[in-house]
Amino acid sequence: MKQASRLILLDHGAGGRLSRELVEGLILPRFGHRALARLDDSAVLDLAAQGRVALTTDSYTVTPLFFPGGDIGRLAVCGTVNDLAMAGARPLYLTLALIIEEGLDLAELERALDSAREAAREAGVEVVAGDTKVVPRGAADKLFINTAGLGVVPPGVEVSSAKARPGDAVLLSGSVGDHGLTILTQRAGTRLDSSLRSDTAPLAGLVEALIASGAELHSLRDPTRGGLAATLNEIALSSGVGLSVKEGAIPVKAEVEAACELFGLDPLFQANEGKLVALVRGDGAERALAALRGHPLGQEAAIIGRAGEERPGRVILETRVGGRRFLDLPAGEPTVRIC
Amino acid sequence: MKQASRLILLDHGAGGRLSRELVEGLILPRFGHRALARLDDSAVLDLAAQGRVALTTDSYTVTPLFFPGGDIGRLAVCGTVNDLAMAGARPLYLTLALIIEEGLDLAELERALDSAREAAREAGVEVVAGDTKVVPRGAADKLFINTAGLGVVPPGVEVSSAKARPGDAVLLSGSVGDHGLTILTQRAGTRLDSSLRSDTAPLAGLVEALIASGAELHSLRDPTRGGLAATLNEIALSSGVGLSVKEGAIPVKAEVEAACELFGLDPLFQANEGKLVALVRGDGAERALAALRGHPLGQEAAIIGRAGEERPGRVILETRVGGRRFLDLPAGEPTVRIC
Repeated sequence: MKQASRLILLDHGAGGRLSRELVEGLILPRFGHRALARLDDSAVLDLAAQGRVALTTDSYTVTPLFFPGGDIGRLAVCGTVNDLAMAGARPLYLTLALIIEEGLDLAELERALDSAREAAREAGVEVVAGDTKVVPRGAADKLFINTAGLGVVPPGVEVSSAKARPGDAVLLSGSVGDHGLTILTQRAGTRLDSSLRSDTAPLAGLVEALIASGAELHSLRDPTRGGLAATLNEIALSSGVGLSVKEGAIPVKAEVEAACELFGLDPLFQANEGKLVALVRGDGAERALAALRGHPLGQEAAIIGRAGEERPGRVILETRVGGRRFLDLPAGEPTVRIC
Repeated sequence: MKQASRLILLDHGAGGRLSRELVEGLILPRFGHRALARLDDSAVLDLAAQGRVALTTDSYTVTPLFFPGGDIGRLAVCGTVNDLAMAGARPLYLTLALIIEEGLDLAELERALDSAREAAREAGVEVVAGDTKVVPRGAADKLFINTAGLGVVPPGVEVSSAKARPGDAVLLSGSVGDHGLTILTQRAGTRLDSSLRSDTAPLAGLVEALIASGAELHSLRDPTRGGLAATLNEIALSSGVGLSVKEGAIPVKAEVEAACELFGLDPLFQANEGKLVALVRGDGAERALAALRGHPLGQEAAIIGRAGEERPGRVILETRVGGRRFLDLPAGEPTVRIC
């Protein structure tokens, strides 16, 4: 006998008994931090060390909710963990806020929350505060998740998009376009190549390895929306340096390359959810590269370019065929909306 | 000549040039904290003092976006400030994440952001990190805002819904139902009584006054979703005490009373956005009351009841006509969805 699916009702978000059942039945068993379990409006946390904290937020509105290599739950945890890691911070605590469309299958919500829990374990962070809203059918697209994150920045670490300097090496931790092309392929309803998988992963360990290498870290970014091209442009613009990168040095998986050709897209503009770009002082480039390659998430890391004084604020791509062109910031929608 | 309205396009959320224009044109001029202005993925903040921090999050999905006494922007700032204040924390920093439906009028977004800025000023908090997503027409209801908040808990302050004790006095900072009935009346499209106004306000100053009074504070809650009834039940349940409150001592504005009669609603179950419930040790009740009344947001404060050992986990209402009944947690939707 097929079990009837249980659906989210407006009452699940109304602050009454059903809300309590949702939180106590679905949320607390997965994210059992004592601050969360007290169900107070705020989590109160002891920060072991005085000093600098990093704070970030991101909303996740991905369609479809589930895709090869991840889902909205894993994405929501990894994305915010990565934003903290890109500030050089050790991620500690997350908040998790759900906006659920009335009628969502509870099994889908449970699956997304399971993934979020697994990702939080992987990243070593705890979910300490949350919120659940249910909106009427048609007022949202199934499930949106917002996560905010708190981390601690170790003494001496000072990274920013504005801190790249001429002479810096540009490092990339692995292949680009995996996440973006996976989502696009799913959205197109095609099954082009079942080996396409999102790279969604928490990058805090990779950043820790980079810091431990002793290389002088200037800028760290994860090339999400707008892809590698947007990230390089942001660093060039914020730091007032010119960046020159070699197309041939940028790892792109064969299946991503193939999908890009089919859709007529450039992998450098496609989203990633488990890669980072690091600008380190030139003399530390090899040490930094070795540190990245020594980590499971950085095995394909490469030095892809260099920062210089020429053409400040711009990114120049040395193409595979030996040409040079500006790699400009996309005006709007880089491809199709995927996040 | 009528100015053509400018609408939000999907491209405003795509991470490219239009996204940058939205952030630099609309967000940064209003929330000019240097951490936000750097446009890095995380804000890095110096916490002056070591110790306990409070972290909270809430999503705001109110319909309509604008209402007498407030709007979604003011609500999103005050709600999160109040969640921090209810942990006894001094609110310091907020994150602000927008989910915008394609086609929203930019003027409406600007108005909501103006209100958010004003509320942040009032509350003494800074917006230090943000995120903007644009989803296709029909995938969201105009505008959702998530705010997360970080505050510092002063030494010695230990409040929680679980800390109420027999003998505590139950204080309420003012009239109930103002926010809920304002929203319901707006939604019903009626203009019953133009004097109905939401009470949306930041309560951090009121909490500061309460702490300064020297009364021993046990529990602090703002009775939002589910109203005063839900809040009292949560405290009774979490603390394992019985609460007894006098209906006649609970301030309700005449226009709220009238609207409740029209809709057939009980004001004790209606949402508030600028009121607090405090449980303080009995011997400090009068001092705490004086502190509340001395603050502009607490002029109508009252002692409305007492915590005891009988009927642990339950709330008993002494009605105006001298009866006694359980004031139970609503099963689901307390009235119509308003948040």
